[in-house]
Amino acid sequence: MPYTYHYLKHFTRQVFEGMGVSPPDSEKIANVLLSAELRGISSHGMIRVKDYYQLWKSGRINSTPKVKVVHETNSTAVVDGDNGIGMIPAHFSMELAIKKARDHGTGWVSCRNSNHYGIAGYYSMMALEHDMIGICMTNANPLVAPTFSISRLLGTNPIAVAIPAGKHPPFVADFATTPIARGKLAVAEKQGKNVPEGYIQDAKGNPSTDPGILKKGGSMLTLGGSYKHGSHKGYCLSAIVDIFSAILSGANFGPFVPPSVAYLPVKEEKTGEGTGHFFGAMRIDAFQSQTTFKKQMDLWIETFRKAQSAPGQPEVLIPGDIERENEQIIMEKGIEVIPVVKDELKEIARELNIPFIAN
Amino acid sequence: MPYTYHYLKHFTRQVFEGMGVSPPDSEKIANVLLSAELRGISSHGMIRVKDYYQLWKSGRINSTPKVKVVHETNSTAVVDGDNGIGMIPAHFSMELAIKKARDHGTGWVSCRNSNHYGIAGYYSMMALEHDMIGICMTNANPLVAPTFSISRLLGTNPIAVAIPAGKHPPFVADFATTPIARGKLAVAEKQGKNVPEGYIQDAKGNPSTDPGILKKGGSMLTLGGSYKHGSHKGYCLSAIVDIFSAILSGANFGPFVPPSVAYLPVKEEKTGEGTGHFFGAMRIDAFQSQTTFKKQMDLWIETFRKAQSAPGQPEVLIPGDIERENEQIIMEKGIEVIPVVKDELKEIARELNIPFIAN
Repeated sequence: MPYTYHYLKHFTRQVFEGMGVSPPDSEKIANVLLSAELRGISSHGMIRVKDYYQLWKSGRINSTPKVKVVHETNSTAVVDGDNGIGMIPAHFSMELAIKKARDHGTGWVSCRNSNHYGIAGYYSMMALEHDMIGICMTNANPLVAPTFSISRLLGTNPIAVAIPAGKHPPFVADFATTPIARGKLAVAEKQGKNVPEGYIQDAKGNPSTDPGILKKGGSMLTLGGSYKHGSHKGYCLSAIVDIFSAILSGANFGPFVPPSVAYLPVKEEKTGEGTGHFFGAMRIDAFQSQTTFKKQMDLWIETFRKAQSAPGQPEVLIPGDIERENEQIIMEKGIEVIPVVKDELKEIARELNIPFIAN
Repeated sequence: MPYTYHYLKHFTRQVFEGMGVSPPDSEKIANVLLSAELRGISSHGMIRVKDYYQLWKSGRINSTPKVKVVHETNSTAVVDGDNGIGMIPAHFSMELAIKKARDHGTGWVSCRNSNHYGIAGYYSMMALEHDMIGICMTNANPLVAPTFSISRLLGTNPIAVAIPAGKHPPFVADFATTPIARGKLAVAEKQGKNVPEGYIQDAKGNPSTDPGILKKGGSMLTLGGSYKHGSHKGYCLSAIVDIFSAILSGANFGPFVPPSVAYLPVKEEKTGEGTGHFFGAMRIDAFQSQTTFKKQMDLWIETFRKAQSAPGQPEVLIPGDIERENEQIIMEKGIEVIPVVKDELKEIARELNIPFIAN
């Protein structure tokens, strides 16, 4: 049976409070994780609770971080996340970017010493209610090889951009800089299915369709898939995300990004502090009147909705359409939690002595 | 016989002065066009001179624009390019972004009422000498169909990001948000060669390998190539470039971007003024000390240079490597101009009564 949004959110809040996280921060963390579930990105939802819990249990992540600004100008800042659960420094950083945008037109915050923060799209969307464009990036566990290589030097390094519209829902792009997100490999592996060529390669650089290849020394390819089809452009994008998130902030870059799961060992070599993120906010009326901008965005959206589909293909989508539809459907139908995750949550609930119905 | 850089630059300056462009602006335009030649991107070099010349002759482009700031905050501005030859408003806008970054940490300028401005990478690299990260995007003639569609709604909308390093040359990414740049189709067409699948489709949305398909109602695909391989991510990127360049500035978006060649008619329907660009500059020391940042960028570059190549593959490149090597080689060996372009330049020289050796 599916869980209601509110049940799982309440439960998740309790789990993080059980780890010593303050009630307001637990609320923020639960919002991000449940938002992923609602938007249909369950790879970043309840399945992640165990990872945060185990990192905390092994003393590798801080549930009460003292997040602070270590450097700033009118439109920029570097934030130190004090090794906090990623959502805590990420909220702090995006709120700071929004404040700077309010005062100076735009705000740009690079954050170090953080950890996995859930879906990038969540933070970009925080800008929308302030009539701002929101931007969010993060580096991540190295699983991706640059073009021509078999070395895992980059994460799936996502980019999220949220743009307000007028009468239409906002434009929300949130995508990994690889052909597919890592979560889809995990799903295929659990289902015992192969994946198409162009996503992954084996340890020697041969094309692979085995979704378990990452455990055998394989690597993911960058967006574009092959050099012939522009994988060097995906490499550029992933590298830009890495540099903005880690070199601007002083976090670990590329292959040195710490694991976001406790079953992988702490890395011996460091080039900075923790995981890095990058946040941006641009006030719409720092460029155009809000009325003009929103009218034009509506026209943009209408123009693209009217695009002619290729025969047999679905309608052209506006970025964010699928996730928004998922939100409505899943809020109504409830959130399905797969049995293995249910067992994990049940065990955490037992250890923390909080109620959980493993229905 | 190849031309020397200096000969072609002097000639190009004279051509634009012959069109009434001021000597300083002619110098800027020649710098951009010749930089494309040196960097090996001849699709944006001398081959374009005729396009600017004919647009000017037909009164469709302004050689003496009064470029002005129409709105600004501490870190942002909107610039009106007065329908100028694109390099003139583009220089103005990037210089303004750099000035704002000097004063407030970052500067972000959206520019409307402009035209084709050459290679995006040029403007991003203007930030490097100021120890800033430079960013540049532009929308362009609609030739690209969003995922699932056969409607040409987007340009090849490039993104350029230049990042300073210490002892190593800078990181310079400059790429179209399509699997290949449009220029490569033109080259294949002239050579009578087919192109691989995954670049283009015919008017009905079938895969095509005919590089001339754009003249038959076909369209280019976005980076990723197919939905299965992430073309919706390329669509997102291209859309973001379009919105930042055109909706923030008040330029024409997507299908309404004016042609950059005189043989295509002026569009009847407008959604704004001219072509749109977007420029950004971020001062390194608005985040980190320059010393720390550059030391870490050097380490990043060294880490990626040490990546293990897949068997039979070349060494891993740092974005900008190929173009920088081209600069050295082509500066020494000279610039090859293909016969048809030579004839075009000869005819322009005759009309403007300036010397040109069609060797």
